[in-house]
Amino acid sequence: MKRVGVALIGAASRTVFGMAGQKLALMLQNHPWFDVAAIVADSPEQVGKKYGEVSKWFWDEDMPRSLADMRILPADPEEVKKAADVGLAFSALLPNLSQEIDPKFAKAGIPVVSDSPGFRFEEDVPLFVPEINPEHLNVIEAQKSRRGWEGFIVSGPVCTVTIIALSLKPLHDAFGLRNLFITTLQALSGAGYEGVPSMAIIDNMIPFIGKEEEKVENETPKIFGGVVDGKIIPSKMRISSTCTRIGVIHGHTACVFAETEKPITVEEATRAFRDFQAEPQRLGLPSAPRNPIIVREEENRPQPRLDRDSNANGMGVVVGRIRRDKIFDRGIKYIVLGHNNVRGTAGNTLLCGEYLYKKGFVG
Amino acid sequence: MKRVGVALIGAASRTVFGMAGQKLALMLQNHPWFDVAAIVADSPEQVGKKYGEVSKWFWDEDMPRSLADMRILPADPEEVKKAADVGLAFSALLPNLSQEIDPKFAKAGIPVVSDSPGFRFEEDVPLFVPEINPEHLNVIEAQKSRRGWEGFIVSGPVCTVTIIALSLKPLHDAFGLRNLFITTLQALSGAGYEGVPSMAIIDNMIPFIGKEEEKVENETPKIFGGVVDGKIIPSKMRISSTCTRIGVIHGHTACVFAETEKPITVEEATRAFRDFQAEPQRLGLPSAPRNPIIVREEENRPQPRLDRDSNANGMGVVVGRIRRDKIFDRGIKYIVLGHNNVRGTAGNTLLCGEYLYKKGFVG
Amino acid sequence: MKRVGVALIGAASRTVFGMAGQKLALMLQNHPWFDVAAIVADSPEQVGKKYGEVSKWFWDEDMPRSLADMRILPADPEEVKKAADVGLAFSALLPNLSQEIDPKFAKAGIPVVSDSPGFRFEEDVPLFVPEINPEHLNVIEAQKSRRGWEGFIVSGPVCTVTIIALSLKPLHDAFGLRNLFITTLQALSGAGYEGVPSMAIIDNMIPFIGKEEEKVENETPKIFGGVVDGKIIPSKMRISSTCTRIGVIHGHTACVFAETEKPITVEEATRAFRDFQAEPQRLGLPSAPRNPIIVREEENRPQPRLDRDSNANGMGVVVGRIRRDKIFDRGIKYIVLGHNNVRGTAGNTLLCGEYLYKKGFVG
Amino acid sequence: MKRVGVALIGAASRTVFGMAGQKLALMLQNHPWFDVAAIVADSPEQVGKKYGEVSKWFWDEDMPRSLADMRILPADPEEVKKAADVGLAFSALLPNLSQEIDPKFAKAGIPVVSDSPGFRFEEDVPLFVPEINPEHLNVIEAQKSRRGWEGFIVSGPVCTVTIIALSLKPLHDAFGLRNLFITTLQALSGAGYEGVPSMAIIDNMIPFIGKEEEKVENETPKIFGGVVDGKIIPSKMRISSTCTRIGVIHGHTACVFAETEKPITVEEATRAFRDFQAEPQRLGLPSAPRNPIIVREEENRPQPRLDRDSNANGMGVVVGRIRRDKIFDRGIKYIVLGHNNVRGTAGNTLLCGEYLYKKGFVG
Repeated sequence: MKRVGVALIGAASRTVFGMAGQKLALMLQNHPWFDVAAIVADSPEQVGKKYGEVSKWFWDEDMPRSLADMRILPADPEEVKKAADVGLAFSALLPNLSQEIDPKFAKAGIPVVSDSPGFRFEEDVPLFVPEINPEHLNVIEAQKSRRGWEGFIVSGPVCTVTIIALSLKPLHDAFGLRNLFITTLQALSGAGYEGVPSMAIIDNMIPFIGKEEEKVENETPKIFGGVVDGKIIPSKMRISSTCTRIGVIHGHTACVFAETEKPITVEEATRAFRDFQAEPQRLGLPSAPRNPIIVREEENRPQPRLDRDSNANGMGVVVGRIRRDKIFDRGIKYIVLGHNNVRGTAGNTLLCGEYLYKKGFVG
Repeated sequence: MKRVGVALIGAASRTVFGMAGQKLALMLQNHPWFDVAAIVADSPEQVGKKYGEVSKWFWDEDMPRSLADMRILPADPEEVKKAADVGLAFSALLPNLSQEIDPKFAKAGIPVVSDSPGFRFEEDVPLFVPEINPEHLNVIEAQKSRRGWEGFIVSGPVCTVTIIALSLKPLHDAFGLRNLFITTLQALSGAGYEGVPSMAIIDNMIPFIGKEEEKVENETPKIFGGVVDGKIIPSKMRISSTCTRIGVIHGHTACVFAETEKPITVEEATRAFRDFQAEPQRLGLPSAPRNPIIVREEENRPQPRLDRDSNANGMGVVVGRIRRDKIFDRGIKYIVLGHNNVRGTAGNTLLCGEYLYKKGFVG
Repeated sequence: MKRVGVALIGAASRTVFGMAGQKLALMLQNHPWFDVAAIVADSPEQVGKKYGEVSKWFWDEDMPRSLADMRILPADPEEVKKAADVGLAFSALLPNLSQEIDPKFAKAGIPVVSDSPGFRFEEDVPLFVPEINPEHLNVIEAQKSRRGWEGFIVSGPVCTVTIIALSLKPLHDAFGLRNLFITTLQALSGAGYEGVPSMAIIDNMIPFIGKEEEKVENETPKIFGGVVDGKIIPSKMRISSTCTRIGVIHGHTACVFAETEKPITVEEATRAFRDFQAEPQRLGLPSAPRNPIIVREEENRPQPRLDRDSNANGMGVVVGRIRRDKIFDRGIKYIVLGHNNVRGTAGNTLLCGEYLYKKGFVG
Repeated sequence: MKRVGVALIGAASRTVFGMAGQKLALMLQNHPWFDVAAIVADSPEQVGKKYGEVSKWFWDEDMPRSLADMRILPADPEEVKKAADVGLAFSALLPNLSQEIDPKFAKAGIPVVSDSPGFRFEEDVPLFVPEINPEHLNVIEAQKSRRGWEGFIVSGPVCTVTIIALSLKPLHDAFGLRNLFITTLQALSGAGYEGVPSMAIIDNMIPFIGKEEEKVENETPKIFGGVVDGKIIPSKMRISSTCTRIGVIHGHTACVFAETEKPITVEEATRAFRDFQAEPQRLGLPSAPRNPIIVREEENRPQPRLDRDSNANGMGVVVGRIRRDKIFDRGIKYIVLGHNNVRGTAGNTLLCGEYLYKKGFVG
C-alpha cells in the first residue's frame, strides 16, 4: 500500500489536546502506513517555528528527533498542501478552534479525524470507534454533499466514553442495553499535563470533571445509534453517571451497573467480553488489539498501574469484577479500565485513520 | 453527672481495629463524661505490659502520656472489675475475637459497644447510629433475657455504612428509599495502618475491598429496619454497590444514585440534608455534630482532604453534587463524604456510648 | 497596646506569593495586636473588586468571610491611607513588583515587611529572622536616611533559609559555623498552589528548584552577618547546597552536614538546640514559639506530615537524627524540618511585624 | 556457548530479597546464556510446592508461566544437583539465612552470587560491580583454599551503593576521591513490596533507612579497595551520608558532593561520566549497558519516573546537575539516579553472573 502523509493539527497546544496530539505523534513513529508529514499550528505565533522549540513536551519518553526539527505550518490547507503531501489529518483542538479549523481541511478535500468535542453532536458526523459503529461512516456522503466539502470529518468520543463503549459493545449486541449507572475514577492525564495541580490531588480526590457526565450520558447513546436518512439517531439506552478524578497518572476506570434487555449471567457476560472481535481485528489493522477486551478474573483487577498497558499497550481495555447485580433482575455489574491517552484518545484516532484508509476513504 | 470509667477492648491490636481503638482513646482525652479506666488485651501476651510498650501507635499525633503508662488487663471482666471501676466497654476486635470476648463482658453486666462485625447480624443486636435508629435499643431487653446477660452488646456499622446511612436518613424519612446504586472511593486508613502497602496504591487504585460490598448491601437495610417482637427486621430497600480503594489517607466517599418512593427535587433533597437533626442533637450529646450533614454547593465538593474534618472535626458528613438522576423518575444522585475513623468508627462508637449513658442504659 | 491596621500587599496574586499572603491573612484572624485593614492589589485590574471575587483561594480552610467582602485597593500608599488606618504593610510580591511597589509604601512612611526576594541583598535591608538577627534592625536608620524614606523595608528570607537558619543559630553561637553541605527535600506548596503539576510529581522527584540553591548559599551568610557602618556584612561561613522537590504538600526538610569552629558532640548539639530561646521568646511575642527548635529522638523523625505543625503550629522547627559526622573532625550532621508556609514565610513575616511593633518601629 | 542452569535461592521470600529474586527471574526470561533450572526454598515449608502457589508476586508484570509450575527445592545443594543441572546460584536471602545457606552451595562447588549483606564484609569475598572492580575476583582462589570450598561466593552491594559507586568510578580513576557527602532519596521498592505502608509515605518523607548509611559509608570504600595478599583492603576515601525514603515507586537518587584529589572542572567530570566504559562493555556481556552512565544536561534531570528505565532499561545510571562545588576547592557536586531493583540489585547480580561465566569462573 502507498504510504500516506499525515497532518497533525494542534499538536503544539499546551492543553489536554496537545498531550493527545503528542501521544499520536509518538504512536506514528515507525507506523507501517502513515508518516507525519506536517504539524499544523493552533495559534498563529507558532507558525514557522520548529516543533521542538514551540512544544512543551509532556511525555516521559523523549521527543522523537524527527519531530523536533519540523517547521510548524499555518492552519491553512492550501499552505499545508504546498508544503507537504498530506492525505489525512488528525486534529486535536479546543472546541471553538476545532469548529473553525477542521472544516477548512475537510472542505479542501482532506479527511479529518478529530479528537475535539467540536463536531461530536452533528448528526452527519460519525462518533467513531472502529470496533463499534463502522456503519456510521455511511453518513459521510450525506455530510459531504450537505456541506459542500470534498473531504469530511469523523470525530472520536471523549476518552472515558471510548473506553466504556468498547466494553458495552458485546453486551449491547448480545443482550441489549436499557439503563446504565456509571461512576468513573479518572486519571490525571485526562485533564492535560498541567490540568491538575499536585496540591489539589495529593491525599485527595476531586468529585467533578467539567462537562464529563454530560459527555458520558450523551455521546454513548450516539455511538450505539443507527443511521436513518443519512443521519445518526441515538440509541434509547439511558445513562446516569458520576465522574471523579483520582491521583492516578494514566488509566480511566468505570464502575458500571448495567440493565440489559435480555436475561444475562456472569458467565455469559464474561464469554461475550472475551470472545468479542470486530472489523478492525478481521481487517488486521496495524493498531487493532487482538482482543479489544481482556477479562481478568482476580478479585482485585483491573488496576490502573497494572492494566493500563496490559492489553495491547493500551489499545485494548481490561474488564474485571463481573458480578450479578443486586437490583436489576436482568443485568450485571463490572469494572472496565482503559488507557485514556491510548485507546481513549490518540490510539482510537489512529485506529479510525487506519480503518478509513483500509476502506478507501483516504487517498 | 457521675463520670463513667470506660474499658477499651482491643486497643493494642495492630489491625484496623487497633487503629480505631487508638482514635477512640484520643477522642476520650478530656471527655466530659468518660474516663479511660482500663485497656483490655486482645491477646494474652499483652497482659501486664504497659500500653506504651505494646501498642504500635498509628496516629500522627503523639500517644497521650496518660495512656502510655496504663497496664494492659486480661480479657476477663472479673479481673477488669477488680482493677478498675468500669461502667462501659468499647470493643474493637477481629470478628472471631469479638464473638469470644464481647459476650463475656456483656454477661458480666458491662454494656459493650462493639466496632466489630462479630454481632452485626444478630437480630437482637442493634446496628446503632444514634441519629438514625435509637428505637432499635428496644431489643436490648430481649437480648438480655434471651441470652441471660446482665449487660448487652450494641454494634456499630462498618465505617462506609455509617457515613452513607447518615446521608440517607433524611431522604428515607421524607421520601422513602427504594433502590440505591452506590460506588465508594475509600481511604487507606479504612484498611488499617499497615493494610495497604505504598507500592500497591501509588499511581494506582484498587477496585476491591474484601466483604465491603456485602456490608454496604446488608448492613444498611438493617439500620433502617423496624423492631418486631424484640427483633430487628431489615428494610426492603435494595442496594447494589461497588467498593474501591484510592490513595487518600482518611475520608470515605460514596457516589449514590437513589430511587425514592415519592417524587423528589434537588431543592427538596438539599433542604432535607440541611435541616436534618435528630436525638443526639436534641439531647446535646458532647460528641454530636450540630448538623449531622453539611451541604456544599461548589460543583467540586466534597473532597476528602478538605472535608473529612470540616463538619465537626469529622463527626458530621458532607454532601455535595446533588443532581437530578437521568434514569430514575423519582430519585436523585449525590456524593457523600465522611471521616472513616471519626464518624465512621471511633466517633460513632463514642456517640453510641454517650447516647446509652444519657438514656440510662449505662451505670 | 493600641491595635494596628495592617495592609496586605499582593494577597490576591495567583503566584506562590499569593499563597503566602493568604496564609498570613489566615494567621491574622483574631490576632491580639493587628487587624487586616487593607488588601492592596498587585495588578490594576483587581482594584475595586471584592477580595472574595478576585482571589483564587488556595488553602484547605475556607476563606474567612471578613476578607471576602474587602475591596481591593490600588498599590498607592496615599489611596490606601485615605481608605484605611494602616500602620504596617506585609508585602508578598514577585521580585520586579516588589522593587516597584514596596518602596512607595516605605517612602510614604509605612514600614514594610516583605516576603519578596526584591530587596534581600540590599546591604541596608535586614534579612530578618527575629530569633537570629534583631541587631540588624540597626541599619534601618541608615536605610531611611540614605534612601530618603519615612518608613523602611525589612525582608524575610526564602522559606527554606528561614527554617535552616533557625536550626543553625544555636550552633553558630556556641560552636561557630565554618562549612555546610545541605541537601533539601522541599514541599510542593513552596512552588505555589499551581506551581507543580500532579503529573510532574506523582511517583517522582524533581531535583531542581530555580534559584533556590543560590538563595540557600547567599541568604544564610547574610542572616548571620554583622553590622558595620550601617551596612550588613555577610558571615564567612560557606555553604554548598542541592535543592530538590518531593511529593509532600507542606514542610521543607534539610539534611545538614555542618563543620563547626569548635569541637562539638552530639550531646552538646542536642542541648544547644533544645535550650535555644531568643528575644521573641523573652518578649512574649504572640506568634513566637516557646521553643524555636524541638528535638525528636526517634530515629525516623522529623517527618513532614507528622512534624510540620507539631512545634507551635508550624512556628517552630523540628530537628532530629543528630549524629557525629564521618568526615568533619569538628562537626555534626542532622535533619531539620519546618512548615514552609508558616515559619518559612507567613509566620516569619508576622513575627517580624510583631517584633517591630513591640520594639517601637511601628506606629 | 553451553547454556548454564541457574538456581534462584530465596526467590519465594516475602521480604525485599524476594522482590529482587523475582526481578531476577523476570530478567532471566529468554536470557541468551542462562536458564532458571531450580528455585530453592528459604524456608522448609515451601519445599515441594509450586512456585506459583507459594510466591506472593510483587511485580506489575504477570508471573511468567514457566516459573509458576516449578517445584521449590530444599536448600540442600545435593538435592538441588539431583533435581537439576545447576552451574550457578543467585541468592537473595536475609543475612542470617545467607550465612547459613550460601556456604553450603559454595562448598558443594556451586558459585554463588549473593545479594545479601551476609558476606559483604568478609575480606576474601568480592563486593562486585563488574564495571568497577573485576580485579577483586583474584581473591576467589584464596577464599576457596582458606574455606575449603569447591565453589565460592561473590557478593553484590546494597542497591544504593551500586548506583552511587558506578557514578564514582570514572571520577575515582581520573581524579581520585577524597571526601564524599551524600544524601539519598530512595524509592519504596528498596524496602520490599510490603516494606512501607501507604499511610506512612503519602504526603510524607521518612528521613531514615535502617543500616543504610553504614552501608553507604562502608561498602563503597571496599568496592574501590585493592587486593593485597588475597584480601581486599578498602580505599581510604571517606563518606558521610544521610539516607531518606520518598514516595517514589522505583529509582534511587543520590545527591553527591565530591572532593577529589586532583583539580576537576564540570566539563572534565561530564566527559569522564560520558566516556566511561569498562570490561562488561568490552566483553559485550548480554546485560551490560552500552554506557554505564548517561549524562542529562537539562537542569531538572535525572528524575526517577523519567530516568529509572531510560538508560538500558535500568542497567545504566543517569547523572545530571553537575556543578562546581561551593566549598571544595577540588571537587564537584552532582546527582545520580539508578533503578534500585535493576542495576541496584537483580541486574547487577545478573551482570556478575555473566562476567563470571564469560571469564571461566562458572561451569
